[in-house]
Amino acid sequence: MTVIYDRVALIGLGLIASSMFWGIRRAGLASEVSGFARSKATRDTAREIGLCDRVCDNMADAVREADLVVLCVPVGAMGAVAAEIAPHLKPGATVTDVGSVKRSVIEAVAPHLPDTVQFVPGHPLAGTEHSGPRSGFASLFDNRWCLLVPTEHSDAAAVARLRSFWEGLGSNVGEMDADHHDLVLAVTSHAPHLIAYTMVGVADDLGRVTDSEVIKYSAAGFRDFTRIAASDPVMWRDVFLTNKDATLEILGRFTEELFALQRAIRTGDGPHLQEYFTRTRAIRRGIIEAGQDTDAPNFGRGTVQK
Amino acid sequence: MTVIYDRVALIGLGLIASSMFWGIRRAGLASEVSGFARSKATRDTAREIGLCDRVCDNMADAVREADLVVLCVPVGAMGAVAAEIAPHLKPGATVTDVGSVKRSVIEAVAPHLPDTVQFVPGHPLAGTEHSGPRSGFASLFDNRWCLLVPTEHSDAAAVARLRSFWEGLGSNVGEMDADHHDLVLAVTSHAPHLIAYTMVGVADDLGRVTDSEVIKYSAAGFRDFTRIAASDPVMWRDVFLTNKDATLEILGRFTEELFALQRAIRTGDGPHLQEYFTRTRAIRRGIIEAGQDTDAPNFGRGTVQK
Repeated sequence: MTVIYDRVALIGLGLIASSMFWGIRRAGLASEVSGFARSKATRDTAREIGLCDRVCDNMADAVREADLVVLCVPVGAMGAVAAEIAPHLKPGATVTDVGSVKRSVIEAVAPHLPDTVQFVPGHPLAGTEHSGPRSGFASLFDNRWCLLVPTEHSDAAAVARLRSFWEGLGSNVGEMDADHHDLVLAVTSHAPHLIAYTMVGVADDLGRVTDSEVIKYSAAGFRDFTRIAASDPVMWRDVFLTNKDATLEILGRFTEELFALQRAIRTGDGPHLQEYFTRTRAIRRGIIEAGQDTDAPNFGRGTVQK
Repeated sequence: MTVIYDRVALIGLGLIASSMFWGIRRAGLASEVSGFARSKATRDTAREIGLCDRVCDNMADAVREADLVVLCVPVGAMGAVAAEIAPHLKPGATVTDVGSVKRSVIEAVAPHLPDTVQFVPGHPLAGTEHSGPRSGFASLFDNRWCLLVPTEHSDAAAVARLRSFWEGLGSNVGEMDADHHDLVLAVTSHAPHLIAYTMVGVADDLGRVTDSEVIKYSAAGFRDFTRIAASDPVMWRDVFLTNKDATLEILGRFTEELFALQRAIRTGDGPHLQEYFTRTRAIRRGIIEAGQDTDAPNFGRGTVQK
């Protein structure tokens, strides 16, 4: 048990915050964790399941004595939350966030914070398709990457301490600048999510194939898209609205490449298709070797019983 | 132990055929299973691991006494295999296949077969990203759908017997006509695979994001695409070349929808995005309720260890 921050405040109590709480408790990373959620129903659930040592009915109480304040709200809500907590932050405290987009969070949050606190943006690359205060679990961050995106004002000691905290939650920690982060995530996360949402929407719209057929026969590939497309709608709305440029750039590249493959199909260019599909296999191998997925068939799903 | 066909011949010894063999043995569905693969290395592996009761060095020997012949080769090879086995088929035998496309398989296979045999095309909607004779396992078809696509000449008794056989392998069995099958699969399987291949290719091509970054940070959504994009390149080349029209139609719809979502991102239309993402969540719920996937987070992947 190594306490890294005496008191931690979690603002927003969804999948990430609830997993952080159980992870903090597992590793003994804080003496006390306070929590706040805008919705009374969420606060009631948190109290019922013992999520946070102290659930507060207003943000000021949650952050007042905190050494680390973690903003766990959708990206589009970060600015307003920062403005609301700013007058109540303890001098010397560190403020971080877990948003999936970094440039727009920095622009929204930094102007509100007093010079007496450190702001070190962050982004744990971990999640599931579930959301809400009941969806968290302590091992969510184990062996996942957490990217810290220090600003030009971030103090090295504050960054190092936050790094230790995320390592205590089980993460590997990397650092990069905000624009590169937003491009990397557009490739590895934002564009794939939009594509999955789109394909699931198309299947739902198609009059000649019934929803029941789509659902019954999903094991042929489609079900993996539906998992991604089941993620939290508000969170993802904000991601696309705030990482607009990088996402649109990657989608542009994607469309170009898709058209080239469509053309190969139309013209019957078998060698082009086979070469392309052979190349993509190697990337999968790299991901398994990097420990970011399992080699078990179908992600190690057990047989699904009716 | 209920023998449905006394002797079964498996032509092509990859993931599907090897899973069928272990499944036939588990349920005692045949007295003897013979097998053939074009590659000597595959036949050697089959003999080494006990795949098939009898591995034959030519197709004629494998099919000569079989009551059921199952064509488990890539869709583009089905016609040539049918021509080669036709003179050696036992009168009264049933020939089926496991190809992912049905119209083109029927057109390629049916003209070669003598009137003395029954042809009942089929397609088990089951698989993993692995391939080859070592990749099979008996439970692959458990609770998965197998679609039978009888032709106008298929005899009802032959269809019913093949249905019992697939039920013995653990499948749910459905029937539909070839064109509808090809459209349903274009939606649930072929288009999603092409899209996943494309996205993985884009990530690999993008100069400003390194492969190492893509691989390390894949857990944010991308890794689910890479699983799909790791599937057998030759099999998938043939699927796209032979289900060209339906796949291109669905990809056309997909592109249209993707452009509408890109436009919503560009214009900052949050309500449109949120409504869309909320709708796709419901489809995921349907798939879990239909028993075609698990509700466990991340498909029930355990924590991946380095």
